[in-house]
Amino acid sequence: MSLLDDTIAAVEPLDEAAMAAARARQDTLTKPQGALGRLEDVSVRLAGMTGQAIPRIGRKVVLVFAADHGVTAEGVSAYPSEVTPQMVANFAAGGAAINVLARHVGAEVRVVDMGVGQPTGNIARGPAMSREQALACVERGIAVANEEIHAGATLLATGDMGIGNTTASSAVVAAITGHPARQVTGRGTGVSDEQFERKVATIEQALRLNQPDASDGLDVLAKVGGFEIAGIAGLILGGAARRVPVVVDGFISGAGQLVAAKLCAGSVDYTFAAHRSVEVGHTIVLNQLGQLPLLSLDMRLGEGTGAALAMSIVEASAKILAEMATFGDAGVSEAEDRAAAQPAD
Amino acid sequence: MSLLDDTIAAVEPLDEAAMAAARARQDTLTKPQGALGRLEDVSVRLAGMTGQAIPRIGRKVVLVFAADHGVTAEGVSAYPSEVTPQMVANFAAGGAAINVLARHVGAEVRVVDMGVGQPTGNIARGPAMSREQALACVERGIAVANEEIHAGATLLATGDMGIGNTTASSAVVAAITGHPARQVTGRGTGVSDEQFERKVATIEQALRLNQPDASDGLDVLAKVGGFEIAGIAGLILGGAARRVPVVVDGFISGAGQLVAAKLCAGSVDYTFAAHRSVEVGHTIVLNQLGQLPLLSLDMRLGEGTGAALAMSIVEASAKILAEMATFGDAGVSEAEDRAAAQPAD
Repeated sequence: MSLLDDTIAAVEPLDEAAMAAARARQDTLTKPQGALGRLEDVSVRLAGMTGQAIPRIGRKVVLVFAADHGVTAEGVSAYPSEVTPQMVANFAAGGAAINVLARHVGAEVRVVDMGVGQPTGNIARGPAMSREQALACVERGIAVANEEIHAGATLLATGDMGIGNTTASSAVVAAITGHPARQVTGRGTGVSDEQFERKVATIEQALRLNQPDASDGLDVLAKVGGFEIAGIAGLILGGAARRVPVVVDGFISGAGQLVAAKLCAGSVDYTFAAHRSVEVGHTIVLNQLGQLPLLSLDMRLGEGTGAALAMSIVEASAKILAEMATFGDAGVSEAEDRAAAQPAD
Repeated sequence: MSLLDDTIAAVEPLDEAAMAAARARQDTLTKPQGALGRLEDVSVRLAGMTGQAIPRIGRKVVLVFAADHGVTAEGVSAYPSEVTPQMVANFAAGGAAINVLARHVGAEVRVVDMGVGQPTGNIARGPAMSREQALACVERGIAVANEEIHAGATLLATGDMGIGNTTASSAVVAAITGHPARQVTGRGTGVSDEQFERKVATIEQALRLNQPDASDGLDVLAKVGGFEIAGIAGLILGGAARRVPVVVDGFISGAGQLVAAKLCAGSVDYTFAAHRSVEVGHTIVLNQLGQLPLLSLDMRLGEGTGAALAMSIVEASAKILAEMATFGDAGVSEAEDRAAAQPAD
């Protein structure tokens, strides 16, 4: 079996017993039941993912998958391709938004070079890559997850950098969900009306020419995807197989997650949607995956910036479960009708 | 002049020059313009509040105003009044949700006892307090703001604890906004259908009996408010007068903010709405104040829990402005049409 096959085979359902224990503990903590809303739900999901009734978040890592895209030759981006390596240097120097936000939440940043300066094929003229390359990139993402988990990571997050990658992501999302290109295409880094029309036409042409098979995640990646999108899909699968939660950033990461879900539907259970990107296609991804994002701050930068902020919310939920006093511990009276319904202990 | 009058007189408009400088700096940072969405807007508002083009967040403090309410005699809460002092003890021991979340974001918690164990009058039978008491409680909140700012606080947040205080808050919100009691009343800590009907009827009776003057914030506080709601109003005014931003928690804090806005409309400019509470009346408060909350996590606990999480978002926005590299610093190429439109520097 391949690493991909092994990984998919290792993805198990959430641990129902740990979830029940976490929910029961939430209901003993010194607050009205349910009063922390989604924080409580996140803590229960964390328990199911990790198999721990009281999950602890330790080392946190944002993986920024970087790659270039041949489709930039079509004039689909407001920025030139040279910005991809320039931004990778900016990540290394600690001056990018993801560096600032990761430091703020106590997470590390690791940039994974999936093909910077060695772009995919131009999807408007042919496939992005071979099926073998798509598989290798997904397995690279799995390997990165395994390395980080081996090094102690307890919470992973996805990020991306790649001029042209909103075009590839829109193509992937259109291919998998069946939505027309126009419905899943946004302004990316900020193109003009004319560039936007060119971008939609380019995606339509890429889909018509390459005919990706919506039922085959690797085929979609190979035909219209990107190296970093494949890496993100692999990271998600790798986290899911090792029961390590993955916080998924915005639109490009969402395209990677759609591919991961196509390869292994159960992988979705091991993810949190970080935020709702301004990119219109992202809401379609979230709806398709049945996920409600934690944040909605009108962001559209990528890099893992939304995921870094959301990691802090996920960690907060774990601390609530681990650190709050119970009614019994604190000597706080419970709700009156609840006390009436249950014998005192 | 009273401390309240002095404080109101000291509230100035936002610093437009600092805001323009912050916006200009945002546009030089290594990201597409606007790509960090509301984080950028928050940083610009911070600049306007503080008068600093690059505002720095240092010491952060959540002020939890605690008090008791005579209206609990009407059976409007799921919990007995003894829970107020029990929870104050829990805050002191560090076991409450606000302790956990404040530690998580690096904020301190200070509990301000506004009348725990010495409840207001029962608003269903008469006024909550005298006008002199209302003024004293608002001025206590101003004094707390001044103390914390003197001690180095750069970001304040509001919180509350007081069994019965959603009832008082609904009465305040109904009085000031003119909405019927039913439209601004929620389940609080989790009352039954029967208790909910009793709660609505109690608020209607309090408004009918006391006839608060919607144009007079102190009158509304005195007739149907609460000691902690008055303290929260004072904290907001005190922050605004000293140009220190105040992150406003949920529904009870929102009622305090409505009072602060009635006393001094300009105080709203110095606040961030932390989150959208599940309490239905909170959305009415947010709409009335023209505020869009930073988070929406279905929380309804109070204590400042939503504000603590939102403080971290506000601080993140300041770090983006202060710590990100510019295009020039990092040697990153700018957007092509922008580069074409502007001479290189």
